[in-house]
Amino acid sequence: MEPSPGKQVTNTVDQSKRIYLFGGETTEGRASMSEQLGGKGANLCEMAHKGLPVPPGFVISTDVCRQYYRAGEKLPADLMPEVEEALHRLERIAGGTFGSTKNPLLISVRSGSRASMPGMLDTILNLGLNDDTVEGLARQASDERFAYDSYRRFIQMYGDVVLGVDHYVFEDILETFRNLNDLKRDVDLEVSDWKEIIADYKRAIETETGKPFPDDLKTQLVGAISAVFGSWQNARALAYRRLHHIPDDWGTAVTVQAMVFGNMGEDSATGVAFTRNPSTGAKEIYGEFLINAQGEDIVSGMRTPHILSKAGRLEIGAKARSLEEQMPSVFKELEGHFNTLETLFSDMQDVEFTIQKGKVWLLQTRCGKRTAEAAVRIAAEMADEKILSREDALMSVDAGSLGQLLHAAIDPEGAKDLVAKGLPASPGAASGEIVFEPDEAEVIKAQGRRAILVRIETSPEDVQGMLASAGVLTVRGGMTSHAAVVARSMGVPCIVGAGVIRVEPEEGRLRVGGRIFYKGDAITLDGTSGEVYAGNAPLRQPDLSDDFARLISWADTVRRLGVRANADTPKDTKQARSFGAEGIGLCRAEHMFFDTDRITIMREMILARDEAGRRAALDKILPMQRSDFTELFEIMEGQPVTIRLLDPPLHEFLPRKKQALRAIAESLNISLDHIKQRVNELSEFNPMLGFRGCRLAIRYPEITEMQARAIFEATLAADKKTGHAVEPEVMIPFVATRKEFDLIADVIRRVAGEVEAAAGKKLTYQIGAMLEVPRAALKADELVAGEGGAEFLSFGTNDLTQMGLGLSRDDASIILADYARAGIYDVDPFVSIDQAGIGELVRIGVRQARAVKPDLKIGICGEHGGDPLSISFFDEVGLDYISSSPFRIPIARLAAAQSSIRIKKERENRGG
Amino acid sequence: MEPSPGKQVTNTVDQSKRIYLFGGETTEGRASMSEQLGGKGANLCEMAHKGLPVPPGFVISTDVCRQYYRAGEKLPADLMPEVEEALHRLERIAGGTFGSTKNPLLISVRSGSRASMPGMLDTILNLGLNDDTVEGLARQASDERFAYDSYRRFIQMYGDVVLGVDHYVFEDILETFRNLNDLKRDVDLEVSDWKEIIADYKRAIETETGKPFPDDLKTQLVGAISAVFGSWQNARALAYRRLHHIPDDWGTAVTVQAMVFGNMGEDSATGVAFTRNPSTGAKEIYGEFLINAQGEDIVSGMRTPHILSKAGRLEIGAKARSLEEQMPSVFKELEGHFNTLETLFSDMQDVEFTIQKGKVWLLQTRCGKRTAEAAVRIAAEMADEKILSREDALMSVDAGSLGQLLHAAIDPEGAKDLVAKGLPASPGAASGEIVFEPDEAEVIKAQGRRAILVRIETSPEDVQGMLASAGVLTVRGGMTSHAAVVARSMGVPCIVGAGVIRVEPEEGRLRVGGRIFYKGDAITLDGTSGEVYAGNAPLRQPDLSDDFARLISWADTVRRLGVRANADTPKDTKQARSFGAEGIGLCRAEHMFFDTDRITIMREMILARDEAGRRAALDKILPMQRSDFTELFEIMEGQPVTIRLLDPPLHEFLPRKKQALRAIAESLNISLDHIKQRVNELSEFNPMLGFRGCRLAIRYPEITEMQARAIFEATLAADKKTGHAVEPEVMIPFVATRKEFDLIADVIRRVAGEVEAAAGKKLTYQIGAMLEVPRAALKADELVAGEGGAEFLSFGTNDLTQMGLGLSRDDASIILADYARAGIYDVDPFVSIDQAGIGELVRIGVRQARAVKPDLKIGICGEHGGDPLSISFFDEVGLDYISSSPFRIPIARLAAAQSSIRIKKERENRGG
Repeated sequence: MEPSPGKQVTNTVDQSKRIYLFGGETTEGRASMSEQLGGKGANLCEMAHKGLPVPPGFVISTDVCRQYYRAGEKLPADLMPEVEEALHRLERIAGGTFGSTKNPLLISVRSGSRASMPGMLDTILNLGLNDDTVEGLARQASDERFAYDSYRRFIQMYGDVVLGVDHYVFEDILETFRNLNDLKRDVDLEVSDWKEIIADYKRAIETETGKPFPDDLKTQLVGAISAVFGSWQNARALAYRRLHHIPDDWGTAVTVQAMVFGNMGEDSATGVAFTRNPSTGAKEIYGEFLINAQGEDIVSGMRTPHILSKAGRLEIGAKARSLEEQMPSVFKELEGHFNTLETLFSDMQDVEFTIQKGKVWLLQTRCGKRTAEAAVRIAAEMADEKILSREDALMSVDAGSLGQLLHAAIDPEGAKDLVAKGLPASPGAASGEIVFEPDEAEVIKAQGRRAILVRIETSPEDVQGMLASAGVLTVRGGMTSHAAVVARSMGVPCIVGAGVIRVEPEEGRLRVGGRIFYKGDAITLDGTSGEVYAGNAPLRQPDLSDDFARLISWADTVRRLGVRANADTPKDTKQARSFGAEGIGLCRAEHMFFDTDRITIMREMILARDEAGRRAALDKILPMQRSDFTELFEIMEGQPVTIRLLDPPLHEFLPRKKQALRAIAESLNISLDHIKQRVNELSEFNPMLGFRGCRLAIRYPEITEMQARAIFEATLAADKKTGHAVEPEVMIPFVATRKEFDLIADVIRRVAGEVEAAAGKKLTYQIGAMLEVPRAALKADELVAGEGGAEFLSFGTNDLTQMGLGLSRDDASIILADYARAGIYDVDPFVSIDQAGIGELVRIGVRQARAVKPDLKIGICGEHGGDPLSISFFDEVGLDYISSSPFRIPIARLAAAQSSIRIKKERENRGG
Repeated sequence: MEPSPGKQVTNTVDQSKRIYLFGGETTEGRASMSEQLGGKGANLCEMAHKGLPVPPGFVISTDVCRQYYRAGEKLPADLMPEVEEALHRLERIAGGTFGSTKNPLLISVRSGSRASMPGMLDTILNLGLNDDTVEGLARQASDERFAYDSYRRFIQMYGDVVLGVDHYVFEDILETFRNLNDLKRDVDLEVSDWKEIIADYKRAIETETGKPFPDDLKTQLVGAISAVFGSWQNARALAYRRLHHIPDDWGTAVTVQAMVFGNMGEDSATGVAFTRNPSTGAKEIYGEFLINAQGEDIVSGMRTPHILSKAGRLEIGAKARSLEEQMPSVFKELEGHFNTLETLFSDMQDVEFTIQKGKVWLLQTRCGKRTAEAAVRIAAEMADEKILSREDALMSVDAGSLGQLLHAAIDPEGAKDLVAKGLPASPGAASGEIVFEPDEAEVIKAQGRRAILVRIETSPEDVQGMLASAGVLTVRGGMTSHAAVVARSMGVPCIVGAGVIRVEPEEGRLRVGGRIFYKGDAITLDGTSGEVYAGNAPLRQPDLSDDFARLISWADTVRRLGVRANADTPKDTKQARSFGAEGIGLCRAEHMFFDTDRITIMREMILARDEAGRRAALDKILPMQRSDFTELFEIMEGQPVTIRLLDPPLHEFLPRKKQALRAIAESLNISLDHIKQRVNELSEFNPMLGFRGCRLAIRYPEITEMQARAIFEATLAADKKTGHAVEPEVMIPFVATRKEFDLIADVIRRVAGEVEAAAGKKLTYQIGAMLEVPRAALKADELVAGEGGAEFLSFGTNDLTQMGLGLSRDDASIILADYARAGIYDVDPFVSIDQAGIGELVRIGVRQARAVKPDLKIGICGEHGGDPLSISFFDEVGLDYISSSPFRIPIARLAAAQSSIRIKKERENRGG
């Protein structure tokens, strides 16, 4: 792992050098050169360098690819002499001669980009064959059928890839031939058959292209190299790069390599192997092989490959002997190579190999894909084995993938009946009975059964029902719609924006894709993938490993960012602490108001005729809020708790149906007319930009008084009970100006003084502002400046994104679908922060605030707090902590650690 | 006018000097020192300096006021010796002695702040009287009654202002005395009566305050000075300063001045005069006087004052002889003084004067308030008279006030019956019959009558009805609500947010303040003030003067900013050109779609099942749009026209009532279910942040194709017809990212190419972006960079304000009322741009864009384009043009000129 100064090839790259040999006395490339040589080429060089058995060859660098495109898709004029020179050197190493009829050298011409793009680019195998050399190959291999089979494969591949003849043309010829001659399988064809077919192939190519098939080997070579470069811009490669954000100007390298053959008899074979189990992460060789076959035979599925290891074979109860049993020494040799490769590349490898007449050849190696579970185990064990440092082990796990481990999942092995797909709003899987009304979910839960709540959209009055549900499915809304945000904070699996579903609650049914599901029918949601299944799909419960716990504990030792949770209830709060939250970054006080018994009092408050009426209702709410906060503070044992004052538009607390309005009128003894008028007054065109946040507190300071009193009295109560000093952070939402902040802060400070006077005790608390209105970020200096300014700031990036992009989260799903199709945002900006745009507001806010108060505590409590890419961004701009929903805490801890490591390395790189 | 270097008093202010004498050999202050001396004091000094007859005195500077408050409302200990020293000097100049029983000096103690705050601060007159000196005054004036009347006035004023005894106490005593003695008027009281009353006054003061009335003159003086300083913080002064944005720390000066008396007989008088007619601006002395009276007698209304000039008297047919006729030489002298004052202060003056035994004394002068009409005439004529330079003439007119001249106004003389007040959304006055439905307005208009449309709020489907109305009144909405924006663009008087009105359209009536008005009842709106009157209030039609035209033409020679109009229809466009617009900065193409015959096709397009259906409808719209644009281009004769592509949410085009939906279903032969479903799909939680602007074009590029084709074909048609080359500027609304811009620009360019090919002619056009989403401003560089980037930008500050402040304009009225009460924004941020916050987005946008393309054309087309304060801001940040509604074009031209002059002067000041 330690870089040896003398071997730092990257630092001494010859800019004019375009071709790099490997496998002989001198190997000119190294693993670190994937920029020039592509991943495949660089790894082949590295293996050759370490003396591993790779067929020799050379790599034409990605620079040539760029030259090719700059010249209008033409090879540089002076390239081929260099290639021929390299070919001569290869001949000497490989011990054959390109074009020789006695000892012909066959080569493969492959692509290889810096990033893996499996199957996207073109490859030519068996190049070096024509009507003359094929005879030489036959003699050399003592196998005429093998030689002609190879030749026809070459013509077919070259015709398709280089000459652009549709592959159906060749398949038609072969199939027609088999049908006419009543031959079932390719192995039934004899040499004479292949010769006949080769003639047919060449005729077809001449008919299709108007030119004869080129017999000249150098012409073939130029064609093959050009074709590989040309495939960089084919449609599927372009689409793949768009999807994976791979820059177009990286280009592909071309690897020219001596052919080896796994189909030279019973002592030959071909196989693929993972150096560890990619599903569980266990340290065992995992893979398949075929005797007397070529790589494409495994892929094609014509023959069933066998298991490499004996243990693996026994585990699945297969009969066919493993490679370990058939060729024990070869297996042993491979085992040794795999260990070498893991150390060499510091990661679990995915290897292709060939055994030619008993000799092992490694054709390719790359880092192996794996499940989240495997990733965690491999990282932890490789750190134990000292293959990885703990930091590198942390870096090796995709933080976002940890979500899979924290929630129930649909058993990938089980039978499933997919009926719809929506947005994966809250991860985890759940099955249950369809209900359309929140209170039905409560009834079902009370009976010990499980409900899946299906709604067009949810509103705050549905919260109790959502909590009672095993899962939530909505037709409308985006990743930060009400349903999504609430479900995530509850850890309830949720799918939103499943627009193909038509919900008909009055009929007690939903329709989707021509099918009808009724209330009570079983349904399964996979909130991790967004998939909806009919019936009870088989589930697998989460089981967190020790490796997981160890890895996350390492993360805590390296990260700079604090990790807090968005949590509103004792349940959330306990969950958050168990996942390692270091405080609460966002407690939405109003979420406590949605309990069935409380919402009535809340409505009484909202519908009151005057301040006296509001105060009467608030007096009833006060002891409830106080006991809520007391419980939260007790659970958090002195860790910081940020409480946001009442934020949502008041109409969210009112019911929508006339019947419910009438019930309220009766229970509150107010005329229905008055209630309707009040509901009407509170309805808005754009509630997101309306009467909410601090605007409520400015109109009704008595609400702030009650909330402040509840917080401060709870502080004293919890202090007394637990002995831990609580220092509450009171956060004012939706401020845009200093004046708003001051007006409300004055009320809070006055109440604090009253509570202090009554208790005869001094309180310690902070008052801060939530930065969610763009103006607040632009003028953060104004908010924090001087005496009485905000003592902390917390970015509310959900709203900042809504306003900064002009995009309502509740209406975003259809728009974002358009935008994803058009590639307008790389990722959903509600999932991962738009770093260039909304991120600029964050940068400005931090800069402005810290210019005035350099040590100001600044956090972020939007949904982006649980997204690894966003966490990295927040780390870079210097926030003090992120706050995420409880179930994303482990992800956040790992992502924060990875960000710290990345920043440290970048700093070291700059320093060195 | 030219500053003479030797006399620049401000530059040599002695920081420790606190008292400034005027009126003797040396006058220590000047007009430029209003910061220290207050406006009144500084102007008195200036007059004294120029040898005008002002009673001598001295000014205690505003610094002392600040010292007074810093010391906890106490005079500085060392102040009074300085005051006494000044008083001695004053005695020498005035020729009397303070406290002398032979030749007593009486003084007034008055306030005077840098900004005029008429009537807000306290004043004490006749100070210097006690039981001894009153006898001296009697002897000196040979008028005992005058002396005792002066004395009781002093006790009353001092008791009220300094000692805090309620003025009712004194009024009660006087009234009781008159009743008991059966005396009707004050003039009927004799010396003995006044003596008795004085004794009663003193007793009452002792009873109220617990202390005897201070006979000591120095005690009185300290009390009076303290009281004037103390009045700076009285409740009404505080409220006045809030309203007029006067900083609290300016403080007031105190002016101590020798008393002169207009009540010393028939050769004495008191009066007030404007040096020009403040109503019309005519150059004539305008004012009133009373023989043998004091200033307060004019104000009190007990006696009717007479007209100063003979011409003025004759004009109103008054009998009482004018001052010109009664005292021709005094009048002549005054006339001379007034000319001197106008030259001295370069402005029309509002002067208070006293004639004491034939001698003229000027007591005060200040710049006179005037109507907009007068302001324009005075400015133009003073420029002609060389009293003002043209630039100073331009600066002397309040640009915002010009609106009064452009619209019908309510006759200030007529009788009015005010019933409600709302926000003044579109200026001008109108009377008509109340209607509640837009189509009723059309019917009434067709019958040649005038309708006032009263709605809770308006929506785009009301536009035709609004156009048919003489005025529009809404209950909801703010200054940039739909009703406000549309009415302004139409020039229809409009009041919005008149929340006190309860509209009951089903009952055909509205209720307000206990009164009921029915459909058909007459009502009058004053859109300039926001006032609603019952009945047909008398109106005055606008009549633009030559002076107005001259002044505005001078403005055009100095302004840097271009002035364009927001105009959508031929009528608007002609209006805009007649007011001097230099182009159209915003043509909202969709406003053409609201015609009754067109909206049906628009709806057909929106409700179509698929692209083919949409294209069929668009094919019908194309020729209409083309002829609209052709007409516009013809009117504009080659001036630039910016056309914004379709912007509003599509549901704005759909009706809301079920009945109307059914009618559409029938006319389009589509099922009502389909229509309902489509309406439902298009409904949004926050339409302002939803499916609108460029998002429409991204989903339905065929709409953009149609609009682009209409624009380009119209360009060619208009070119041909008028011979003027039209260079249309196509503006893409609501972009946030470059990708959105590119997608739509590509469609526009493709259509341009097709039109060019078909016509065999090259088109010249620009494609730009509207900056209204905060992200667009933050990343303006991204939008304009490189090939294919935006060729111009235009800030849409309405939406930028909505999103930047998190404030929906349609829901803002109630919130902004709260905010105005709390002083959160100085002005309505939809009326005048929030320079610190939203202005920062503008600054960032300009900086980012010009960093990439230094010469990029950038304009602004939001409603702020017609607001003088905002225009000044846009000039400072370097925009190229503003675009305002047609009726604000003259205002914008003047405001832009004023801004240029201000910037030039600031630069000169910095340079010098």
